[in-house]
Amino acid sequence: FSSLYSQIELNITQICLAKECSEDEIVEELLRLNEDPKVHGIYLHLPPASLTSRVLNTLKPEKDIDGISDLNMGRLVRGDLSKVFVPPRASAVLDLLEKHGEFLEKRNWISLYLISWAEDMDVPPTWFRPGAVVIRCEPTLATGIVEYIMINVVHSYSRWLQEQQYQPWHLRTLKLQPLMPVPSDIEISRAQKPKPVDQLAEQIGLLPEELEAYGRSKAKVQLSLLNRLHAQPDGKYVLVAGITPTPLGEGKSTVTIGLVQALSAHLKLNSFACLRQPSQGPTFGVKGGAAGGGYAQVIPMEEFNLHLTGDIHAITAANNLVAAAIDARILHESTQSDKALFSRLVPSVSGVRKFSPIQISRLRRLGINKTEPASLTPQEVHTFVRLDLDPSKITWQRVVDTNDRFLRKITVGQASTEKGLIRETGFDIAVASEIMAILALADSLEDMKNRLARMVVGTSRSGQPVTAEDLGVSGALAVLMKDAIKPTLMQTLEGTPVFVHAGPFANIAHGNSSVLADKLALKLVGRDGFVVTEAGFGADIGMEKFFNIKCRASGLRPNVVVLVATVRALKMHGGGPNVSAGTPLPKEYIDENVDLVAGGCYSNLRKQIQIAHLFGMPVVVALNVFRTDTQAEIDLVCQIAKECGASDAVPCYHWAQGGRGSIELAQAVNEAANTPSNFQFLYHLEMPIVEKIRVIAQKVYGAEDIELSPEAKAKIDYYNQQGYGSLPICMAKTHLSLSHMPDKKGAPTGFVLPIRDVRASIGAGFIYPLVGTMSTMPGLPTRPCFYDIDLDPVTEEITGLF
Amino acid sequence: FSSLYSQIELNITQICLAKECSEDEIVEELLRLNEDPKVHGIYLHLPPASLTSRVLNTLKPEKDIDGISDLNMGRLVRGDLSKVFVPPRASAVLDLLEKHGEFLEKRNWISLYLISWAEDMDVPPTWFRPGAVVIRCEPTLATGIVEYIMINVVHSYSRWLQEQQYQPWHLRTLKLQPLMPVPSDIEISRAQKPKPVDQLAEQIGLLPEELEAYGRSKAKVQLSLLNRLHAQPDGKYVLVAGITPTPLGEGKSTVTIGLVQALSAHLKLNSFACLRQPSQGPTFGVKGGAAGGGYAQVIPMEEFNLHLTGDIHAITAANNLVAAAIDARILHESTQSDKALFSRLVPSVSGVRKFSPIQISRLRRLGINKTEPASLTPQEVHTFVRLDLDPSKITWQRVVDTNDRFLRKITVGQASTEKGLIRETGFDIAVASEIMAILALADSLEDMKNRLARMVVGTSRSGQPVTAEDLGVSGALAVLMKDAIKPTLMQTLEGTPVFVHAGPFANIAHGNSSVLADKLALKLVGRDGFVVTEAGFGADIGMEKFFNIKCRASGLRPNVVVLVATVRALKMHGGGPNVSAGTPLPKEYIDENVDLVAGGCYSNLRKQIQIAHLFGMPVVVALNVFRTDTQAEIDLVCQIAKECGASDAVPCYHWAQGGRGSIELAQAVNEAANTPSNFQFLYHLEMPIVEKIRVIAQKVYGAEDIELSPEAKAKIDYYNQQGYGSLPICMAKTHLSLSHMPDKKGAPTGFVLPIRDVRASIGAGFIYPLVGTMSTMPGLPTRPCFYDIDLDPVTEEITGLF
Repeated sequence: FSSLYSQIELNITQICLAKECSEDEIVEELLRLNEDPKVHGIYLHLPPASLTSRVLNTLKPEKDIDGISDLNMGRLVRGDLSKVFVPPRASAVLDLLEKHGEFLEKRNWISLYLISWAEDMDVPPTWFRPGAVVIRCEPTLATGIVEYIMINVVHSYSRWLQEQQYQPWHLRTLKLQPLMPVPSDIEISRAQKPKPVDQLAEQIGLLPEELEAYGRSKAKVQLSLLNRLHAQPDGKYVLVAGITPTPLGEGKSTVTIGLVQALSAHLKLNSFACLRQPSQGPTFGVKGGAAGGGYAQVIPMEEFNLHLTGDIHAITAANNLVAAAIDARILHESTQSDKALFSRLVPSVSGVRKFSPIQISRLRRLGINKTEPASLTPQEVHTFVRLDLDPSKITWQRVVDTNDRFLRKITVGQASTEKGLIRETGFDIAVASEIMAILALADSLEDMKNRLARMVVGTSRSGQPVTAEDLGVSGALAVLMKDAIKPTLMQTLEGTPVFVHAGPFANIAHGNSSVLADKLALKLVGRDGFVVTEAGFGADIGMEKFFNIKCRASGLRPNVVVLVATVRALKMHGGGPNVSAGTPLPKEYIDENVDLVAGGCYSNLRKQIQIAHLFGMPVVVALNVFRTDTQAEIDLVCQIAKECGASDAVPCYHWAQGGRGSIELAQAVNEAANTPSNFQFLYHLEMPIVEKIRVIAQKVYGAEDIELSPEAKAKIDYYNQQGYGSLPICMAKTHLSLSHMPDKKGAPTGFVLPIRDVRASIGAGFIYPLVGTMSTMPGLPTRPCFYDIDLDPVTEEITGLF
Repeated sequence: FSSLYSQIELNITQICLAKECSEDEIVEELLRLNEDPKVHGIYLHLPPASLTSRVLNTLKPEKDIDGISDLNMGRLVRGDLSKVFVPPRASAVLDLLEKHGEFLEKRNWISLYLISWAEDMDVPPTWFRPGAVVIRCEPTLATGIVEYIMINVVHSYSRWLQEQQYQPWHLRTLKLQPLMPVPSDIEISRAQKPKPVDQLAEQIGLLPEELEAYGRSKAKVQLSLLNRLHAQPDGKYVLVAGITPTPLGEGKSTVTIGLVQALSAHLKLNSFACLRQPSQGPTFGVKGGAAGGGYAQVIPMEEFNLHLTGDIHAITAANNLVAAAIDARILHESTQSDKALFSRLVPSVSGVRKFSPIQISRLRRLGINKTEPASLTPQEVHTFVRLDLDPSKITWQRVVDTNDRFLRKITVGQASTEKGLIRETGFDIAVASEIMAILALADSLEDMKNRLARMVVGTSRSGQPVTAEDLGVSGALAVLMKDAIKPTLMQTLEGTPVFVHAGPFANIAHGNSSVLADKLALKLVGRDGFVVTEAGFGADIGMEKFFNIKCRASGLRPNVVVLVATVRALKMHGGGPNVSAGTPLPKEYIDENVDLVAGGCYSNLRKQIQIAHLFGMPVVVALNVFRTDTQAEIDLVCQIAKECGASDAVPCYHWAQGGRGSIELAQAVNEAANTPSNFQFLYHLEMPIVEKIRVIAQKVYGAEDIELSPEAKAKIDYYNQQGYGSLPICMAKTHLSLSHMPDKKGAPTGFVLPIRDVRASIGAGFIYPLVGTMSTMPGLPTRPCFYDIDLDPVTEEITGLF
């Protein structure tokens, strides 16, 4: 019998209550233990008088080791247990263990909590078998009782196991009663009271211990979920991309949100939207928030658009710690001898010098396999202490999450304390930090930590890359980012779940939300559910990077592409006049004009569908309908889209109607997801960098060829030499045209794509060629959004956010 | 009878459940309503079959309007209520109303929730009396029933009222088992499992709806608590200050934490510590964390030292939005005509131009009492649109929460897009932002918003101050800071409560934690409880500002000053050799030397006690004992301190023993708090600025006189002219000496204090004279703390924080 337990180690933590413990105190202790996920069972060893019904009722049945609460035994004296119960046959235990054998192998311990009133209980433990099961118990407990307890442990264990399994959803959606005319976004958001986030979490099968609430309406979800549900099959994976947009944006986020509202609230199919966290820059600048719009929004939208759970702030702090470390290191190296540097970097603590783990890692990369500081030769000390960063080759920029154009190009180090070590540098918007790209691509805490350590911040005077780990800062970065790696759970206006996680810039980085949010969501929705994720910019940029970079990093394979189009953008591609922010729309965009629409469909829309087909993906075109669109225009788009190879094409009315307005889209997506897709990457990683760039330029953008500047060529040679040649490519190109020329609409051909320069994000893991000049720091207009944003100090209501 | 209700408005929100509602759905709705603080009563109007025992058990008794759950009526048909109950006499209602009359006057509404199964229930409402009580009910309900319901409403109301009253604490402390030798701070912190923060909150009388959890171990507390407990008398208010410290710090935070651990966990007196949130700069720089140390810590210390609940990040975002707005505005004014600026600042939306509230506020300050944009004269347009900021007189700096010395002095605007508008400026550490000082001094959301609007960012070319409101950014700032204004609840190693809130720089600002945290804590501890708050730097700086600035802003009056001293610092003041960070302590500090100790006591300690006496405060000297202190040294300090006028002087051993080591201090503080104090400010606000500075210099620092530079004189004239003359003074002076000369230890006399310059924080509300050069941006050393900070990606354990 005892050998059955050879797999299990039973940890019993014993707390002795003082004899005068009050009922209140016992109850409080039990409440704490009930909620402690590390305690699998509680055995109450208390004087009979303390076993009140309140105490017994407090004990969670699933943690009740000897079934005392199940059986309503009341004030039974524990010593008599053996007289009351006939211990179940050992074969029952055998059955249970066999059933859960696989699990037991993976998690070979059970933790029991023994609450004892005997303060001096220090009898020697009873060992069933050394190293196997340990039960620490009183000698007065007969073997029968111990056996009985063991069986209950296994029962309790199997109940716990059950709890760990995938739970079917029992989602209660929120009812929407859309008004006409559609009120402002913040008014709509405020009018809908979100479910408490712990209720939402419970409805979609999250365990309480997997949730970390941040206030009432948002919570971080722990990555341990991936372990718990590792055997659960993934749901369907849907990517929302768009045609080449006007500068006003064509509503990919609202389509994404409308689609999950339709799937979950109307078709009763589990679904999750995975969205990017927006930068505060645009929220206070020109664009406004990014929580969707109209009746397709994430709520509360002000929480979504402001600090959320602090991830971008954590990125800013981490990014700027690297920057401070770079300049401070240059200063200290410039003023100290090798010996002084070494004695400060490896200080003597109580007479002993020791390398830190980060330093040992650097030594190894330098080929110095020593761990004893005193054993380094002077040359090795020199190599170790001097990063010898070339100030003109520092690629690391500082960041703020503010549209602060005056920080685009600055000179730092002008105080006399910096001893003349001035240099030119600049700030990017925080979401352009490589750390944001890493957050979006990492698939575990460990992976994130390794990527952070690998980040290259510049080059030494001898041409060697210098990393965050060389600066000694990589551990601190991981510490700063330890909470940011957990996706944030929120909900749509109809109470369906949303993950908000990461928001890398879509030009110099890959513009897609996080791998981890998608992975968690794919487990949660279940086999027949849907995860809808969005790629930034047009499909030529965001979707291409989604496939070639994000899917490569995650190993996930999508099932359907939803391609968002608007009559407005199609008219522009069909030859309509210029569209720009802040000026009224020309009348071509307000009156019916089927010719312009057709022109746009046969050029840009067709080309974007073809791009998706390059990757073997079925495409559903979602026409985001505006008030001014006519039925003839709508019908025409849907007809031509299908002609051009779309599996389906449907109009969507989510902005005015919520999920109800996107039911047709949801049905089309459901259908397309059930047809087999044939996903393939566009290029092999082993292809030379230049070839990878050429394939994207020709096949995706429609270019005739590419043309590399001398800088670009030199950089490619350098990256090849450093061993970065097999990284994927992340093109930094305008989103306003398929080409590099923002004013070339439709589907331009015959152009040569100029590659001005090539850069690398080694931690994130991609090479990014620059096509033209990319601004990584937006500016504020004359009247930024913030003019209208206000807070009522009495009601605490926010106005002016959109 | 009906006239009794003339004070109460009864809000009944009705929701109609569809007839096919499942038990699950009803229960879920009830769970939601149970927790909704705005719903005071729930009346279930459901078909008998739906009134299952599960439904009835779910309904919270205190929200149960007609007592259905109290009485276990089971499946009673509601129409029969009148047959079951004899309605109580009207006099009972009268009694209740009279008892709670005062409350009803203040909160003259009750909100009821009617859950009805009759979808078409739209009978006209029954009015008892227009404008008084409104009960919307079915015609089938007899008047007797309605009356009965009303009485139950009042009962329920009085129960709710009870809940709103002050709740005595039932704190369960955490047991400490200190080890010898004392392990590292992070090891001690990790070994103690904090209580879930909602348990802690409940134990100290917070209502669940007053708490916003951020993860499991920290939560923001809503300011509404101040309204709920406004009638509750404040507890005792204790300030922890210190003698002039060595550069290593003398442990004011650990004394503060040790003291509350002793008060709450050992003397069983309610107490709260109010601490400053530390900057991340020092955490990753030189000093390490600020959560206390040894067995007197706030836990989890890594949460305390890292992002906490994001307040400093919110300050950074708000501060830098102002900075971006300044430079962008200068750029736009430089490139646009008055007309173009006006048409952008007051854009035509659907053909209508309207001023925003922020703009109307600016117009009023300019003396233009118009609200119609078209009615402004060209001159008025010019005045309105042009802030005409003088780039050389911008006082607003950008901030980061990183020790980034290279940002001390920089040039911005060097990109070609900024059209040559380059200027010199700099970054401060985030906690030096005026917004941090405002957060610490504001006593409500409205007060904070007004202060943010008043902040002066620079001067126009014509010499007028330009404010955040002039930039149109003040509403957005309030929105960014709306959560930061709520104090964060955490706990000590012994499970006693701590507020962490605000951490303004102690030199250019006032260096004290927030007014709001102190106010909330003073209500929570109750009349006989203690709030222990800490002032930065030595008593000559932090304590002086606590009294003259913070107490003036809050209206609170302290009861006791605890003055922290160490044998180490006293030896330094007695003539011991130089103490500096990073070098070993000279042997005078390790071996017994009573002469040096006596010298320090009779100079610096005596002077600091006298300073507290200037304000009429009793002083308890807390000697923070180090391992190397001898009994003779300890006894000597205590003896001389009492000689010099301290009410008491005791050694403290909290670092090694936790609260148990500070019991003597707690007793001394309790005794001193019960002696009458005679608090007085050092100066009247109406005194001229120069006189206020002179009083501080002479009476507090011991200077002979002050000497103003020409710049300082000019600034004082300007501030007087602008009407800032009656603001309090916030001296920016070194903390390493009572004088302006860091190397003058003891109690220097006969010096003339030079005032190099004078600046003003108009939003925070003080004038700050600069004595010498103040660095507002620390630097990183050769081997910053971050070298040792690491994260185990599997266990998620952090190492290297201290």
